[in-house]
Amino acid sequence: MKIKSPYLIKPHAQVRLAKKSTSQTAGYKSEESAAAVLAKHRTQLADLQDVFYASQTKALLIVLQGMDTAGKDGTISHIFSGINPQGCDVASFKVPTPLEARHDFLWRAHAQVPPRGMINIFNRSHYEDVLSPRVHKVITDKVMRRRLDDINEFESMLFDNDVLILKFYLHISHEEQTRRLQSRLDDKQKHWKLSEADFRERKFWTQYTDAYDRIFSATSPKHAPWFVIPADHKWYRNIAISAIIVEALQSLKLKYPAPTLDASTIKL
Amino acid sequence: MKIKSPYLIKPHAQVRLAKKSTSQTAGYKSEESAAAVLAKHRTQLADLQDVFYASQTKALLIVLQGMDTAGKDGTISHIFSGINPQGCDVASFKVPTPLEARHDFLWRAHAQVPPRGMINIFNRSHYEDVLSPRVHKVITDKVMRRRLDDINEFESMLFDNDVLILKFYLHISHEEQTRRLQSRLDDKQKHWKLSEADFRERKFWTQYTDAYDRIFSATSPKHAPWFVIPADHKWYRNIAISAIIVEALQSLKLKYPAPTLDASTIKL
Repeated sequence: MKIKSPYLIKPHAQVRLAKKSTSQTAGYKSEESAAAVLAKHRTQLADLQDVFYASQTKALLIVLQGMDTAGKDGTISHIFSGINPQGCDVASFKVPTPLEARHDFLWRAHAQVPPRGMINIFNRSHYEDVLSPRVHKVITDKVMRRRLDDINEFESMLFDNDVLILKFYLHISHEEQTRRLQSRLDDKQKHWKLSEADFRERKFWTQYTDAYDRIFSATSPKHAPWFVIPADHKWYRNIAISAIIVEALQSLKLKYPAPTLDASTIKL
Repeated sequence: MKIKSPYLIKPHAQVRLAKKSTSQTAGYKSEESAAAVLAKHRTQLADLQDVFYASQTKALLIVLQGMDTAGKDGTISHIFSGINPQGCDVASFKVPTPLEARHDFLWRAHAQVPPRGMINIFNRSHYEDVLSPRVHKVITDKVMRRRLDDINEFESMLFDNDVLILKFYLHISHEEQTRRLQSRLDDKQKHWKLSEADFRERKFWTQYTDAYDRIFSATSPKHAPWFVIPADHKWYRNIAISAIIVEALQSLKLKYPAPTLDASTIKL
């Protein structure tokens, strides 16, 4: 799986999120100009998913991370509505349940890894268990480093067992988050979406950014790369991410499986 | 949840599948005339699913049963592509694994019951564990009756815990199955979809039909009804099923949840 993308984080690159654009649109000027591109990607994705599901040779794990309001839910609904739900699952990782917390931090993620033939989207992921505990100093720096190593080993094992991994960080600016939260505050219909936590975590923006910098620098091997996607413009975010997924699936050159019976012997 | 439908099986009705139409199209003349209806249902379904997911008050379990080639996979892809995959899961029930077989027959089904806010589609279901074992005389008639009772108790408990259940039998004729299998045999691209079992099970058509008659007569209470859908015409099957699901969701009159915080107190 070779993917060319300006948003790819190279292995062991020193990443500084603060220096990466959140608003770039690669020449596209407006949502209208991108709509046809997204429609095309969605059609391609539906076709590719069909053979992916049939061939059962590979699994695809898509990780979505980002600050609150970065657009993880929107990415899922815009890119993956249209795909056959039989071949696609979504797993949301929230604050660990008491049972989950009693397990190692990879336990709940492992349980949600897709089997061959399936696409599974992680809305937040095992990275959350490095990120938030470190920001709030629940784990030491040493434990953070160990967990990043654990994640690398884990993803490497998955890759050896036919699980492709694409990891996307939806990169929005602090100003864009302010705008999005303000627009939720302004729209009474959207108040149910708001929680105290959205406003609380926002105060740790710098700490989260620092933690992400370290995560991206440590966990972007060739076989499980991170992509930092400019996400201030939702419409650009959608085509940038879908383009990468389409390219990844195309590069597999999958075929429908060979027949298991000799059709010429069958008489109805 | 009140649903009017000519395809609804009333509680304790004496069902004779052989007397029910497989080819009715309720006045629709062609696929073209139904296409706009399906498009409308899909849009309605996407909107209804959004509030269903947000409100987290009810879960929806959709059971699809039918003979081989009846169109269970096609129903899923045609009706549910377009829905947000984050709110919709599909569980396929195949021959029980060794672990599943060591459990009671409802164990694997229970594990896949949707939580509140989610729609889960059962592609085959716990009914398979009554059906096939009885047809092949792996279980006695007495055990079949006991399992049907167990299913009624199980579904009743689910209903008491906010799980709505809609059960669809995709009703095709033996001739239509012949046509579909023949068309798969004629199309080399589709040979990979064929298995010995498709042709083997077909010989038990009458026994399956008898078993289904008993299932429908015994397990169609008001709160978890069966619908026997004429399914020879795929396009009609799709609009008939989607109409029932749309009506069921509309009848819930769900609302977006109330805000949990006072937005007026928040300053960004």
